[in-house]
This record gives sequence, C-alpha cells and structure tokens, in this order.
Amino acid sequence: MSGSPLLPPYLTEPLTPERAARTPPVGLGILISGRGSNMEAILRQIAAGCLSARAVVVLSDNPDAPGLETARAYGVVALALPPEEYPSRLDHEAAMAQVLRERGAELICLAGYLRLLKGPLLEAFPGRILNVHPSLLPAFPGLRAQRQALAHGVKVAGATVHFVDAGMDTGPIVLQAAVPVLEEDDEERLAARILAEEHRLYPLAIQLYAEGRLRLEGRRVRIL
Amino acid sequence: MSGSPLLPPYLTEPLTPERAARTPPVGLGILISGRGSNMEAILRQIAAGCLSARAVVVLSDNPDAPGLETARAYGVVALALPPEEYPSRLDHEAAMAQVLRERGAELICLAGYLRLLKGPLLEAFPGRILNVHPSLLPAFPGLRAQRQALAHGVKVAGATVHFVDAGMDTGPIVLQAAVPVLEEDDEERLAARILAEEHRLYPLAIQLYAEGRLRLEGRRVRIL
Repeated sequence: MSGSPLLPPYLTEPLTPERAARTPPVGLGILISGRGSNMEAILRQIAAGCLSARAVVVLSDNPDAPGLETARAYGVVALALPPEEYPSRLDHEAAMAQVLRERGAELICLAGYLRLLKGPLLEAFPGRILNVHPSLLPAFPGLRAQRQALAHGVKVAGATVHFVDAGMDTGPIVLQAAVPVLEEDDEERLAARILAEEHRLYPLAIQLYAEGRLRLEGRRVRIL
Repeated sequence: MSGSPLLPPYLTEPLTPERAARTPPVGLGILISGRGSNMEAILRQIAAGCLSARAVVVLSDNPDAPGLETARAYGVVALALPPEEYPSRLDHEAAMAQVLRERGAELICLAGYLRLLKGPLLEAFPGRILNVHPSLLPAFPGLRAQRQALAHGVKVAGATVHFVDAGMDTGPIVLQAAVPVLEEDDEERLAARILAEEHRLYPLAIQLYAEGRLRLEGRRVRIL
C-alpha cells in the first residue's frame, strides 16, 4: 500500500512448524456467531502445526452458526449457548466464561462474535481476549466497517487485531494491515480484500501472544 | 504495508515531463505558515517539468515563515499577509482570496497552513482547495496527528490529500498512503516517514486535478 518497503520484522517472520514447536501451545477458546471464517483461518494453521496453540472449544451464541459444523470438521468441540436460555445477558456471558474456563481456555478469540462483552468474560480473561475488525481502527468501529469506509471515501482500508475491552472495537491494537480501496470496489469486493488480511493477521497475533511477545503499555501494545 | 501487492493504477503512473506536457498547466496558489516542505515538494516537481502546473503565488499568514524564502529561491512570488493587519479573520481571508484571484490561481494548495478556512476562500475556490494531512483520515484529524497516532497505539499510520471544506480535516479524500508504525518510533521518526508519503502524494494529486481526473461524488472522490 505504501511507497515505503519497510515492514515491522514481526510481520515478515513466517508461521512454520519449527517456530510453533519452540513454544508450548496456548489453549484457545473461539467465539463465533456465524460462518467463522477467521476461526477457520486459525484452525487451519493449528491443523498445519504452524501455531503454538490448540483449540479447546468453539462457542456460538447462535445455534445455527455454520461455523459450529466447520469447527467439528476440524475435530474441535463446538457448543451453542443461546442467550435466550439464560435469565440475563450477564448470566449468558458468565456461562460462556465458565465453559471456557472448564475447557482450559487461556486466550479467547472473538471471530465474528456479534455481542459486546458486558463484564464476566473480561473479568475471567483480563487482557486475554482478542478480536479482529475489518477497518484500520480507530476509523470505522462497529458494524459494516467496510461499508462505512466506502461511504466515507477513504482510499486506504484495512484490518485490525486488538485486545478487547468493554467498548465497541476500542481496545489496544495488536496488529494492523492496510489494503487499497479501488475505484471499482463495492462492499463485497472490499470486504474480501480486507478478509484476506484478517486471516493473515489473526493467527500471527495468536502466535505472538503464545510467544509472550505482546506487552501492554497503557493503550499501546509493544511487540517484543 | 499490506500483504496485498495490488495498487490503484493512478498511484503507479509516474510524473514525467512527457505526461506533464500533455495537459495545460494549472495555476497554483500555495498557502503556508512555516517551513513549507510540501510546498517545496510541489515546486521541485514543477521545476523538473514533471507537473502540469505553475506556481502563481505563495502566501503566508506568518511573515517569518522560512518557506517564503524557499519559494523565492524557486522564482515564485511569495507574500506575507499577517492577519493582525486586517480588521477580522474574515477580512484577512478575503484579502488572501483576492490576491490569489488577481495572480491567476486556479487551484489552492494548503501546505502546512495552520488556519481553518472561514468562508471567503471556500466561496472563491469551491472544490478547488487541497490540503495534506499526516494521518489516514478520518483517524486523527487536527494538530500533531503523528503524536495522536502513537498515543493511540496504531500499527499503521499514513498521509491523506483531501479537498478542504469548513471542517477540521473533514473534506473529501483524494489520495492516501499507509506507512508502518515501528516499535522504535518516536514522533519525529514517524513524522519523517509520513512526510515522505506526503511529498509523494501531493504532487500526484495536483497532476490528477490538472488532468481533470478527480470527480466528486458526494463525499467520495472518483479518480478517472
């Protein structure tokens, strides 16, 4: 995207079985609401032996999420916890947190999980919840970020992996990648270009987390 | 910056004397408040014959702006119009507009001009005022955008050329380029990396304007 060829070194170190083997695997709990394409990008890297991670459980708030079947196809336990079955949203989230703890999750990855976290998950996994968002945050938080970007007329869009806090896509940024907006783009074409970067960044962020290379300083994430 | 190698074609067409000669030169009025490094990037391309533009006048609100001497070194008329010499800000801006018109300016380029436009210039040159800003707008408008970006912890920063409206860095975006934020960056290092992109984008935006290839659709700038 840039005329500048330089890249941070952590973006160019490939994910390989040799690298993954050097670090004990971290237990991932993955939360989805739909297709879970970012979940699949993560599971694919795990299946290839290229991530220091194992997926301990996939949870969906939506029993019809197609990603549940995808997870099972990768041999991962996948459960639906519909919020209607709980007295309140807090109870629902507390139940999610309990399942995640029982299954041995150490890092939580939101992958198209469409609910704001209300408290119990943030308290159970402080500084250990990641999300991916299809914009260069802080631009265009919230839903349909790609459409927001097109409507605003930006010429550079992108993807962000960030730690989750109680806000809407406001937590400390771990990794970002830019993509161009092309003249002929519609929402779908731009979303596909951004999604490819999401699939690249998210496993990388998990590997850096597993390697203990993410250090939070204020709202800045230092990458060691 | 991105894993994606594709670039919009207008970013890869070089500025050459052959290209510049195909389009009649547009008269530029350049407004500065200080060093005017973006002004100099533009004047350098004009001097090299690589821009379909001629600089008709450089104006500064600050009589001590070093950029005034730089402009004169390029043979460009450079005048200071200190706002203290006018009854009001509107009068000051109206006087700027009058000088620009008298000198034959067709396109106005803000280059580190530190005043918000209040009306007279916008009315005199509707849709014909450009600015450059050291962030990927809409992120980090206003002063010290590079410092804002570092404080927020973004991993991708950049530069934006945009049409000017009455807001603070809110007008329609013409060109953007991304640069990485590196772990070892301070404000100065990041600003230098962004400035290199500003110097690249601004002449390119002027050339596209001169060629009649910028079409405003709502707040989106189509590049033909």
